[in-house]
Amino acid sequence: MADSNSLDALIHALKRLPGVGIKSAQRMAFHLLQHDRAGAETLARALQEAAHGVRHCERCHTFTEHPVCGTCQDSRRDASKLCVVETPADQSALERTGVYRGLYFVLMGKLSPLDGIGPHEIGLKKLFDRAQDGMVEEVILATNFTAEGEATAHVISEALKARGLGVTRLARGVPAGSELEYVDLGTIAHALVDRR
Amino acid sequence: MADSNSLDALIHALKRLPGVGIKSAQRMAFHLLQHDRAGAETLARALQEAAHGVRHCERCHTFTEHPVCGTCQDSRRDASKLCVVETPADQSALERTGVYRGLYFVLMGKLSPLDGIGPHEIGLKKLFDRAQDGMVEEVILATNFTAEGEATAHVISEALKARGLGVTRLARGVPAGSELEYVDLGTIAHALVDRR
Repeated sequence: MADSNSLDALIHALKRLPGVGIKSAQRMAFHLLQHDRAGAETLARALQEAAHGVRHCERCHTFTEHPVCGTCQDSRRDASKLCVVETPADQSALERTGVYRGLYFVLMGKLSPLDGIGPHEIGLKKLFDRAQDGMVEEVILATNFTAEGEATAHVISEALKARGLGVTRLARGVPAGSELEYVDLGTIAHALVDRR
Repeated sequence: MADSNSLDALIHALKRLPGVGIKSAQRMAFHLLQHDRAGAETLARALQEAAHGVRHCERCHTFTEHPVCGTCQDSRRDASKLCVVETPADQSALERTGVYRGLYFVLMGKLSPLDGIGPHEIGLKKLFDRAQDGMVEEVILATNFTAEGEATAHVISEALKARGLGVTRLARGVPAGSELEYVDLGTIAHALVDRR
């Protein structure tokens, strides 16, 4: 498009974003250069700062800029409960219900053997270590109610039970086949209260 | 989401892209940080280089890194024909046909009075100057066949005719490869009127 190598490079880089094809990438590049150069510079800085500054929390594995995230450092939270979620977005949805005051472990993925994502890739070893810190009494599995999320929950549940830990699963108040981040908060709250 | 200001800043910056909402922005940020940090850095560099390096061609107004773009500099092209398009993507579509060997003028937009985009915003003055360089004999209007594109073509056509220039419009008609029974009636009506 047009007569510019750096424009082509920008379109190519935008196309690497998930859900962005060539037409969307062209539209985005065009918009930024024609109408929002300040936005382009803001995005460039945000990308660099996040790529350099964001790491994983040593305890719960979520994104943070500190060795241990604010949630894990919060002494008012109930350290006897550990809620396992797939992504930070899922964690955020649970937090917004205001019902849960325990801690979290963020898998940053789910088991997906067909894509080559096994127990090692989503850090299950780290979860098992974390769950056996002596404080955790109950592990609440809040992976998505999709086929892969259920399989992930099953694998974790079996492993933790074998280690003598109490394991619960979000109640089936959450509609089967849906993903947590898109479920309304009331439904998530009910599922938390009715966990089994 | 999560415990990171720079992650929030990244999501916010991604949300400024056209067609990207909060969920898509979260998904993009999550993907870049979890699976493609190299992609984040590449995109950051591409954004900065494009934002600093890309300007408008002095003759045709398209994106370029040079004062005058490669197409306008190409002496083998027919300088007596000037094709007016809305965007570099439209220009690219025309180029790929291989049929046109004249020059271009890229409006970088279209008249859209409801959005406050008038003749001044899309640089019509520049087009009128360009079309009166003494070389141009025919201006081919290739704006889109939308309401706004048609209105833009009409305004340009009137202004250029008043300046004594020859003005043509891309033919409207039935798309190649289509069957009449599935073509909308407006298109068939135009194809009948414009029959040759």
